[in-house]
Amino acid sequence: MEELETKRIIGLMSGTSCDSIDAGLCEVYPDLSCKLIRGINYKYPPHIRAKIFQIFRGEASIKDICQMNFAIGKCFADACKILIEEFGKPDLISSHGQTIFHAPQNEKLDGISLKSTLQIGESSVISKETGCPVVSNFRESDIAAGGEGAPLVCFADEKWFKPLKKNVLVQNIGGISNVTVISGEHTTFGFDTGPGNMIIDYCTQKFFSKPYDEDGKLAREGIVSDSWLDILMQDEYYLKNPPKTTGREYFSPRYIENALKLAPENPKDIIATVTALTAKTIVKAYESFIFPEIDIDEVIIGGGGAYNPELMKFIRYYLPKHIELKTHEDYGISNNFKEVMAFALLGYCTYYSIPNNLPECTGANYRTVLGKLTY
Amino acid sequence: MEELETKRIIGLMSGTSCDSIDAGLCEVYPDLSCKLIRGINYKYPPHIRAKIFQIFRGEASIKDICQMNFAIGKCFADACKILIEEFGKPDLISSHGQTIFHAPQNEKLDGISLKSTLQIGESSVISKETGCPVVSNFRESDIAAGGEGAPLVCFADEKWFKPLKKNVLVQNIGGISNVTVISGEHTTFGFDTGPGNMIIDYCTQKFFSKPYDEDGKLAREGIVSDSWLDILMQDEYYLKNPPKTTGREYFSPRYIENALKLAPENPKDIIATVTALTAKTIVKAYESFIFPEIDIDEVIIGGGGAYNPELMKFIRYYLPKHIELKTHEDYGISNNFKEVMAFALLGYCTYYSIPNNLPECTGANYRTVLGKLTY
Repeated sequence: MEELETKRIIGLMSGTSCDSIDAGLCEVYPDLSCKLIRGINYKYPPHIRAKIFQIFRGEASIKDICQMNFAIGKCFADACKILIEEFGKPDLISSHGQTIFHAPQNEKLDGISLKSTLQIGESSVISKETGCPVVSNFRESDIAAGGEGAPLVCFADEKWFKPLKKNVLVQNIGGISNVTVISGEHTTFGFDTGPGNMIIDYCTQKFFSKPYDEDGKLAREGIVSDSWLDILMQDEYYLKNPPKTTGREYFSPRYIENALKLAPENPKDIIATVTALTAKTIVKAYESFIFPEIDIDEVIIGGGGAYNPELMKFIRYYLPKHIELKTHEDYGISNNFKEVMAFALLGYCTYYSIPNNLPECTGANYRTVLGKLTY
Repeated sequence: MEELETKRIIGLMSGTSCDSIDAGLCEVYPDLSCKLIRGINYKYPPHIRAKIFQIFRGEASIKDICQMNFAIGKCFADACKILIEEFGKPDLISSHGQTIFHAPQNEKLDGISLKSTLQIGESSVISKETGCPVVSNFRESDIAAGGEGAPLVCFADEKWFKPLKKNVLVQNIGGISNVTVISGEHTTFGFDTGPGNMIIDYCTQKFFSKPYDEDGKLAREGIVSDSWLDILMQDEYYLKNPPKTTGREYFSPRYIENALKLAPENPKDIIATVTALTAKTIVKAYESFIFPEIDIDEVIIGGGGAYNPELMKFIRYYLPKHIELKTHEDYGISNNFKEVMAFALLGYCTYYSIPNNLPECTGANYRTVLGKLTY
């Protein structure tokens, strides 16, 4: 086996909210720890972003998808170039890509499994434009190994938080929320708890033309409708046993519009209630699937949701009092660029052929090296 | 640089006609010559094939495309497994994939090029199912390097036919027809001459419910309509200067249906005329773009079209008498599995980081290593 060396890796991620590309230059060390040197947000050009949403809405042709794979690859490359201009070429670029579909359900056709996922942002374009090798398409490999292709970040959570020697829940709140359960006695596992900022953002856009609820201001001025919250909590996803993953395909605009039919009249009450929903579904998932098994010491929040004080307040409110609530920043890991750092680590492992999926998290049949290498 | 060794490589290809997957176990040698050990056709299961055509017709959702990427990957893996059962694991699998879109035109959005191509048949699935490393997605890399992503087979043609020390045209007749021009004095170049069997097959299916014109029997019983042929020959694609590539997106069912409005009444006359069309557009391309520059000694036909004696007769008829007409078989290369052998060679080169595009053929800005490696 090749001896591990410290590598400079740009991690690339664009989440389901699709505001911008997160690009982070990281140093990944042979002990698999990771330091962020610089993180940037690179906004998609407006027509490109509109086209991505057209794809999400199912209104895109195959030509659109084919073209956007290349166009998004160029945007990812442009994001890298900003970092390269300042810091020089990295050893490797590790790209999550832009998820445009994720269908981990077990359908079949002619006896062939249709379990699938699709991340676009052509790695060849990133590679040729930057002159760097690129690792990409991690989720595809995990599905090919029988998994759900998500959550992948568990792998990084284990490497980074297991050394704390506590029982912790690492909770990411992006468009979707996912948790990683790390404890001394148990194997690390994880799953998607449900919506993260996705429903909140949809509602702030619809009622206030704002892409998100900055500092939780809108939620703070509203009153939670307990009756509507009870109805929303009935969704069957929350009852399903882990491992489980979800996405924009399930918590879709149609899903949200349907839910809004029973919503309170005041839009601020709506924002307050869907913010409470995200918090409550997270804690409910702990109560159903984690607390009965493991005494948790601490919950560590990351992702954009960590910056929404109202959402944090609701989580604190629902969470048993003896459990500490922290954010990634408390451990020197950027809330915003945590996923980017995780993908830098995943890319490092792929480069050295170190298995980098956790079957307990994704449901894969075996540990394997995820991803593809583009020269 | 690593020393080159002989490698056993399975080449995988599924053309635009989408009848079946061609899989060929090859030995590729350090001098870049290639021997076919065994070639097989693996039929797509019926619902999978129907779904691919649904994608071609633009009637598929993003979910369908996402799912078919995985399902076709499984079919490719199953084709490999037949060869693996008999011959054991190869060193490498090299997959062209199933083209579902090819849009090499220079459109832009927000200043970003939309030139693109899409080959599906998830390499992770092929790799995990067979336990072999897989090289794939060659065309994407060439487009990322500024090319049209096609024709790629020119690279193999040059390696295999340049040693003849003659001026030859290597003409592949698959769904689309493409030529590679190999001569002592000139750099190798190539382009798509236009339709291959695509229009013929469409018409045999429509009028005779047959997937293709076996042994050219239907064409033989028809009479060529010179007036209709003249009209068909007016298409602007034939006038365009090389490098140029085309595909099912251009010579589409709609295109053919439109052309059929002026067709003769007798379906056999239609088959005869579209067979003549393929032959005439091929030779016309030579007359317009090759003969004025290079004295050609020989034309070497490959692909399914080489097995259509009527098509071969028409080519002989249109071709100047002093030029010899041969097939790949005359040089010990399978007409049917030539492309598969070419992709085995391309995969070999990717594995050893040997640049394997020919910018003179694809229009790329530089020579580069095509493809991605999946472990």
